[in-house]
Amino acid sequence: MGDLSDHMKQYMQELKGQIEAELERFFEDKIREKSDPFIREMVKDIRDFTLGGGKRLRPILVIVGHDLFAEHSDMIVKASISMEISQTYFLIQDDVMDQSTLRRGSSTFHVRIRKRYLQGVPDGSRIAENISIVAGDIAESYSHEALLASGFSDSTLILANEELSRIFETTGEGQLLDVISPTLESFSQPDLLRLHLWKTANYTVSGPLKLGAILSGNQRYIQELSYYGSLVGIAFQIRDDIIGLFGDEKTVGKSPKSDVNEGKKTLLMMKAMEESDEHQREFIRSCLESGNVSDEDFVKLRRIVESSGSLDYSLNLAGMFVRRAKDYLSAVKGNKMEKDFLLWFADYVVERKF
Amino acid sequence: MGDLSDHMKQYMQELKGQIEAELERFFEDKIREKSDPFIREMVKDIRDFTLGGGKRLRPILVIVGHDLFAEHSDMIVKASISMEISQTYFLIQDDVMDQSTLRRGSSTFHVRIRKRYLQGVPDGSRIAENISIVAGDIAESYSHEALLASGFSDSTLILANEELSRIFETTGEGQLLDVISPTLESFSQPDLLRLHLWKTANYTVSGPLKLGAILSGNQRYIQELSYYGSLVGIAFQIRDDIIGLFGDEKTVGKSPKSDVNEGKKTLLMMKAMEESDEHQREFIRSCLESGNVSDEDFVKLRRIVESSGSLDYSLNLAGMFVRRAKDYLSAVKGNKMEKDFLLWFADYVVERKF
Repeated sequence: MGDLSDHMKQYMQELKGQIEAELERFFEDKIREKSDPFIREMVKDIRDFTLGGGKRLRPILVIVGHDLFAEHSDMIVKASISMEISQTYFLIQDDVMDQSTLRRGSSTFHVRIRKRYLQGVPDGSRIAENISIVAGDIAESYSHEALLASGFSDSTLILANEELSRIFETTGEGQLLDVISPTLESFSQPDLLRLHLWKTANYTVSGPLKLGAILSGNQRYIQELSYYGSLVGIAFQIRDDIIGLFGDEKTVGKSPKSDVNEGKKTLLMMKAMEESDEHQREFIRSCLESGNVSDEDFVKLRRIVESSGSLDYSLNLAGMFVRRAKDYLSAVKGNKMEKDFLLWFADYVVERKF
Repeated sequence: MGDLSDHMKQYMQELKGQIEAELERFFEDKIREKSDPFIREMVKDIRDFTLGGGKRLRPILVIVGHDLFAEHSDMIVKASISMEISQTYFLIQDDVMDQSTLRRGSSTFHVRIRKRYLQGVPDGSRIAENISIVAGDIAESYSHEALLASGFSDSTLILANEELSRIFETTGEGQLLDVISPTLESFSQPDLLRLHLWKTANYTVSGPLKLGAILSGNQRYIQELSYYGSLVGIAFQIRDDIIGLFGDEKTVGKSPKSDVNEGKKTLLMMKAMEESDEHQREFIRSCLESGNVSDEDFVKLRRIVESSGSLDYSLNLAGMFVRRAKDYLSAVKGNKMEKDFLLWFADYVVERKF
């Protein structure tokens, strides 16, 4: 297992290198194209944010979805970056909406913009947020442009572009549920899983895999890849919530308190409340509503999540999803290397530390 | 001239009817497709906002750009609505960024959302703004989807989709300049005209016309249409600023004070400041910085814009742009009806009352 894991991580590293080189090229061309000095600086800001970190999971999965059925090529690397640039679009706008200040261990985009261009300007925070919303929208256009310039045949690109628009649409719908959910009186576990399906699973795993498969020209296993991706993607989100609560700031790149301070009703919180007495339930609720939980309360909250059995419940559910995902994958006929990778990846998602 | 104008307006009305019927169909299909009740309501909100007003100028120009070189068809009407749905995307996000409350004589999108779903909810205004940003993003995906589903050939759709992404990119760049410009120490008349070119002319006139021409399969006169559209588009914006300052709330659909209250340095304001003495210049500056200009000061401001010669300057500049635009158009070989329309339209833009 250790050897396999090293091998697969090396494979991911190799693809990551290709993806980042292509991102560099894309932004270099964009910057060269811009004559207005402010716009040129903004494109550089978008580039720096994009290249400043991230696991490149989504473009890696686009490439894997393609290479599962067709030979690796420059074209698929070019197309894959569309899913990394769209990540920039979502992260920039997400951080504005959540009023976050830290991302990938560094300032969020709107904080950078405020510091860089708007020091001492009245209403500078608002202007920085507005600039960031528009910069996100521009990144979204880049995402479409990168896909369209990848060199695949017209008919393939049309299908792929439809899929890309659908991915954005569904992610947006997940976002809407995410934003409205704290205001809803009843928001159940099935509601939450559907939110994860739309906002994370579709966008992080099943969408990229389907996009890759469409680009390969083989659409026969779209359904299986979609099931695999949905299940692994939900498991990914559950794991993310666990890392968010139990990880440390250094490896995660943001405060472990931030989910709690944002009042996120994660599966961990939902289940812990379900399994607790009225007194503990009230305590969890007060932590989520505090906006700024104390160190002491945060430690206590973690303990309740463990002692209530909620942590085990999340771990088990994620494990079950991953097993089912692998069942769906076994029906897919494709290249062994990429299939092995996806089998390994399903486990990796629930075992990773960050 | 009266007869011609009636005839052309009737032609626009006819296209408007076709466009609105197609928009109805598009949203009906979308709503039918959604199973989540909240998402379904949100799509209805996006539909109501889209269908709730607007001159449908952009889709009309997409159709004219196509029909100039090819026969009118259902396909071009289907494709044209992409430019109306993208208008929804820009308006929703614009109104959030500008914190506007009125649009098309009715509440802006984020105000509607707050009233409809978030009455009495803590932080409801912020949540409504976040929902609106995401709803705008979703409309942007619809825009791509509508174009891709229009039925043109794959190779044509690829070119058209590239153009659509470019239109969004350039509009975003114009937006960036617009947001940052109030914070810049020097923002000259050429800067402002470039802003109009990117934010308005490209998006309102030249982009739609080029998109239509690309869909017709005739790319021979793209450059001429681009020049025509840029010049008419800047004239359109200059006229918009004049209507914004001198029109009345009823016909314009928003308070004539709103540009001033937003501190917009329009060409009218720039030129008035240039041509005024220090005392008047200070008065104009204070109106733009007030955030809430009094009735009395507003009347005085209008008078300065007239007496300084700034209004005439804007009118003359717009007139000159329109004449040059018609020169470029005369080199285009296309169907007489649509060419006559564009010649008339150039004049209409600077003569319209709202």
